[in-house]
Amino acid sequence: MSENYPLLSKLDSPADLRLLPADQLPALADELRRYIIEVVSARPGHLGASLGVVELAVALHYVFDTPNDRLVWDVGHQAYAHKILTGRREQFRTNRQYKGLSGFPRRSESPYDAFGTGHSSTSISAALGMSLAAAHQGQQRTCVAVIGDGALTGGMAFEGLNHGGSLKSNLLVILNDNNISIDPSVGGLKEYLLDITTSRTYNRLKDEAWDFLGRLDRIAPRTRAAVQKIDNAVKSALLKQSNMFESMGFRYFGPIDGHDVQHLTQVLSDLKQISGPKFLHVHTVKGKGYTPAELNQTAFHAPGLFDVGTGQRLSSAPSELQPPLYQDVFGETLVELARQDERVLGITPAMASGCSMTKLMEAMPHRAYDVGIAEQHAVTLSAGLAADGMVPFCNIYSTFMQRAFDQVIHDVALQQLHVVFCLDRGGLVGDDGPTHHGAFDLAYMRMIPNMVVAAPMDEVELRNMMYTALTTVNGPFCIRYPRGRGVTPDWRRPMEPIEIGRAQRLRSGDDVAILSIGIAAHAAIDAAKRLSDSGVEATVVDMRFVKPLDETLLTCIAQRFRRIVTVEDGCLVGGFGSAVLEWMADSGYSPRIVRLGIPDRFVEHGPQAQLYADCGYSAGDIYDAVVQMIDDK
Amino acid sequence: MSENYPLLSKLDSPADLRLLPADQLPALADELRRYIIEVVSARPGHLGASLGVVELAVALHYVFDTPNDRLVWDVGHQAYAHKILTGRREQFRTNRQYKGLSGFPRRSESPYDAFGTGHSSTSISAALGMSLAAAHQGQQRTCVAVIGDGALTGGMAFEGLNHGGSLKSNLLVILNDNNISIDPSVGGLKEYLLDITTSRTYNRLKDEAWDFLGRLDRIAPRTRAAVQKIDNAVKSALLKQSNMFESMGFRYFGPIDGHDVQHLTQVLSDLKQISGPKFLHVHTVKGKGYTPAELNQTAFHAPGLFDVGTGQRLSSAPSELQPPLYQDVFGETLVELARQDERVLGITPAMASGCSMTKLMEAMPHRAYDVGIAEQHAVTLSAGLAADGMVPFCNIYSTFMQRAFDQVIHDVALQQLHVVFCLDRGGLVGDDGPTHHGAFDLAYMRMIPNMVVAAPMDEVELRNMMYTALTTVNGPFCIRYPRGRGVTPDWRRPMEPIEIGRAQRLRSGDDVAILSIGIAAHAAIDAAKRLSDSGVEATVVDMRFVKPLDETLLTCIAQRFRRIVTVEDGCLVGGFGSAVLEWMADSGYSPRIVRLGIPDRFVEHGPQAQLYADCGYSAGDIYDAVVQMIDDK
Repeated sequence: MSENYPLLSKLDSPADLRLLPADQLPALADELRRYIIEVVSARPGHLGASLGVVELAVALHYVFDTPNDRLVWDVGHQAYAHKILTGRREQFRTNRQYKGLSGFPRRSESPYDAFGTGHSSTSISAALGMSLAAAHQGQQRTCVAVIGDGALTGGMAFEGLNHGGSLKSNLLVILNDNNISIDPSVGGLKEYLLDITTSRTYNRLKDEAWDFLGRLDRIAPRTRAAVQKIDNAVKSALLKQSNMFESMGFRYFGPIDGHDVQHLTQVLSDLKQISGPKFLHVHTVKGKGYTPAELNQTAFHAPGLFDVGTGQRLSSAPSELQPPLYQDVFGETLVELARQDERVLGITPAMASGCSMTKLMEAMPHRAYDVGIAEQHAVTLSAGLAADGMVPFCNIYSTFMQRAFDQVIHDVALQQLHVVFCLDRGGLVGDDGPTHHGAFDLAYMRMIPNMVVAAPMDEVELRNMMYTALTTVNGPFCIRYPRGRGVTPDWRRPMEPIEIGRAQRLRSGDDVAILSIGIAAHAAIDAAKRLSDSGVEATVVDMRFVKPLDETLLTCIAQRFRRIVTVEDGCLVGGFGSAVLEWMADSGYSPRIVRLGIPDRFVEHGPQAQLYADCGYSAGDIYDAVVQMIDDK
Repeated sequence: MSENYPLLSKLDSPADLRLLPADQLPALADELRRYIIEVVSARPGHLGASLGVVELAVALHYVFDTPNDRLVWDVGHQAYAHKILTGRREQFRTNRQYKGLSGFPRRSESPYDAFGTGHSSTSISAALGMSLAAAHQGQQRTCVAVIGDGALTGGMAFEGLNHGGSLKSNLLVILNDNNISIDPSVGGLKEYLLDITTSRTYNRLKDEAWDFLGRLDRIAPRTRAAVQKIDNAVKSALLKQSNMFESMGFRYFGPIDGHDVQHLTQVLSDLKQISGPKFLHVHTVKGKGYTPAELNQTAFHAPGLFDVGTGQRLSSAPSELQPPLYQDVFGETLVELARQDERVLGITPAMASGCSMTKLMEAMPHRAYDVGIAEQHAVTLSAGLAADGMVPFCNIYSTFMQRAFDQVIHDVALQQLHVVFCLDRGGLVGDDGPTHHGAFDLAYMRMIPNMVVAAPMDEVELRNMMYTALTTVNGPFCIRYPRGRGVTPDWRRPMEPIEIGRAQRLRSGDDVAILSIGIAAHAAIDAAKRLSDSGVEATVVDMRFVKPLDETLLTCIAQRFRRIVTVEDGCLVGGFGSAVLEWMADSGYSPRIVRLGIPDRFVEHGPQAQLYADCGYSAGDIYDAVVQMIDDK
């Protein structure tokens, strides 16, 4: 360590950092950047965002008295330099590994992680809360929110700005403006940020005045000179007052270069002296300092394994024989459906590459909308489209759909509008951990009247469910599927409709019934095979729909079996198993039912298979549960 | 009708309206206003907002070709004039009555109701979706969103603006700026709207330039004259470019007087000719034209019954002997707790008077924050406060808390932060109907790990739960209680802690156990009394907590009873009864359980007691359910 990283290896805390002379900060930033690249190339994580804020992290910890001053990193995957500087340099080699460091700031991990982040656009509200707490407690401290231009489009960031601008508390919002989130940023705000960056407004006004004065020059020879002075006099006022953030009550500073660490420290030191709400606009380059990441910002957002020297992504090599990613099945199927039916549109809030809606954007650009980080808007926009006869396929990761829960209820389901919700990343997602697990979707979707809730066990079923959602219903339809790869290399088969609510029996046996939803079917089948080897024969059913349930099949099951196991890659509280319990109770049956799924706690990060086992719904757990039930009798 | 309303009585549709000469529109507006006052004084509804947009409603239907052009009324309680003009003049006399007209726009009620609204800030997204649908379908139409300045602070309105400003579609956003929602508007945006209204920015710049020129005047005598010309030349450009909405890609027009109906029709006619996204800023007065409503805008938002002549609110007469409103018990108790413990703060998103947090605002103004219509921000602000040692009591109506579901999970529960969520208007709320029922809260809150979920059966229990939430836990705590009055006139008793998860037995009997949560206890006791008269003795338990459940008590119940009824003023899917089913199944018990509560459909508006009976969880329904169970055996 010390050889490659002479400065960094000596820094065990921000207190050590503050002892460095300012002229060594650029060298430190270089070391940090190299270290992040070294570690992330071998242990996949979020690269681009963290490289973009290396200098900012150094400058913030150099100038502010962390952890007494509070630092909130929006979205959180930009926080690697922060973690390395705050006592977690060596631990960073366990980044995102099972039982290692989290890929996001966590209050339980370090006192320097003032607020846990993972979902976007929360930082302003959180830092404002902290600044108000400080005021109530008579504490002198600065509370800083670092937020990207992508995250700033999320509505709650605006809510926080609106509230914060009307208060006097000591809040510093730093806009990390790199013009990209995972995919390029979207919307009017982006244009506006570019506009103030290049001072286009000011220049346009000046040009207009100048032209006008040219015509006046004959009659008033000294006018130009006079006006030039006025011009300078009002310039700063004009620029400030025409600024949206100033309008809302923040003092606006910038834009400044986010990679000039010495200038950053100077500006931050100045801002430290100014009380009240402040807004610092910083320009950064996503992937800064690593050419492959600068050149391909979307791919190097989270590149997986890569060769540091060549920039070659090691996991990106295509394998024809591998089953596809679920997201690609969604993406390609959506293109097929859009070609078949002109009512079909794709809507996604800043997850176009993550959910592979990019495929539709490439094939039929006018049929897909990336609306920016704006889950609520994505859903209600879809409702508006559906109200006038389009059929939007609205793709939002399961965990982010929580943010549009109200819009799903109030704008879509209550009006019985034909919107197809495709929830990618349903169930436990693995390395991203508790902020990103899609644990709750089956439970919160099934409580909504009029909603159909489906989860495919494989790629072919996903395609058929999408086809069914388009062709056989006229109301809201939710399909959730997991992160990662499926099981069917030859998945490109003609699509067929599925009867709404109809389950399919995968295996028959007389001793126990295993009812599964979604990909849990595979663990159920595995368990059934092992049980068969032990002389226990299980019926296995892929329920396909959490709502409506297949009542005909459940009636058969209830009449034939005294022992039922339910399995789901979702929360046990109120989830699929609970739906089965409700149906049994309401129908007057009382078989013994054991429910397996995500228990009532937040689940840490780690490989998906490991987490399934930790949560008790792997094939082995199903096997054990059945054996236990049989022993109990 | 025809005598008092000579113009209005002849208008059966907007087509009739368009036949009127423009000079009769002011008289029509007067009639509309009188009619709204007449009806709402006798059948309680939302008065102030609808009076404020009478002229706007007339002008919109006069100029635009509704229903082919689309009109989306944000929040929707401002839509009375719209309803009266669109074929529902006589039906309006059934406004908000059981099986009568809804108090909000509804697609199922009229083709003129392009989009159902009830929750705030959805209109821009919905209208944008419609305008995109029109573009895809080759339809020529204008899609109009009418949104208040209060609703504009809701984050999703900003998300919609950000997206809409970057597209070319034919969207007209009309800002109905009256500087108040239910309570006065909040935040930096309010200041900004006032700023552009009074042109303060422009005037300040001009003054500065003028002063400067005064000093220059000696050396350049004609400069002032020259600069004045420049001044006019750049004025419009300056005002436009300094405008936040222009910044985001909208063409901004206004502000104009929203009560000059003829000018409104002219401006709207002009705007009809301009394609692309447009933003019209209209000034209105909430309660316009009815002096009592103009003078007391918060009270006349939804005044209840009132005397038209005197403006006296008939339902506002205090009755010392009546039990209190639950909201007032919350409000007064919060003041007591804030006096006892300096960590206590009140946070509410624009429901200060509705939840009676106004009491804390009056008693200790610096201890309460109305953050504007911004549920997401309210929750994450609370998380930030709690992260630094404060204990925020965050009060949000149950139905609106759906909008902050993700923030409750991600920012509060995942970090185990000590935030007390007080959900007013839990359960069926009555006249406001399906957009406002708090049907889902017990189900969506109990699925969140670390959350305590409580519901009091009466005012004393509400106080004790608030006290308990402050003093005995160090994590998230949710208390939900209903709209309306309690049952205990002498509710001001010393507060006592309740053991977390501990239920209380209200009555003992051997034939059946009735487990209730919240105010359903009263129906359960009523039913038990009637059952006793029929010779059936019921145990009745007020469970108090949906999470954690009282396992000791449930074990007793499971061992002693084969018949259990659960009762809740909440959704059956995944709700309290479902929690009991889960516990029984997980614990190996299989009693017969009948669950009563809100069924899996959206419930219409009407008196609460009527709706409880419609949904099958009135005392009579509980009685019937028990008798049925006994007969079945």
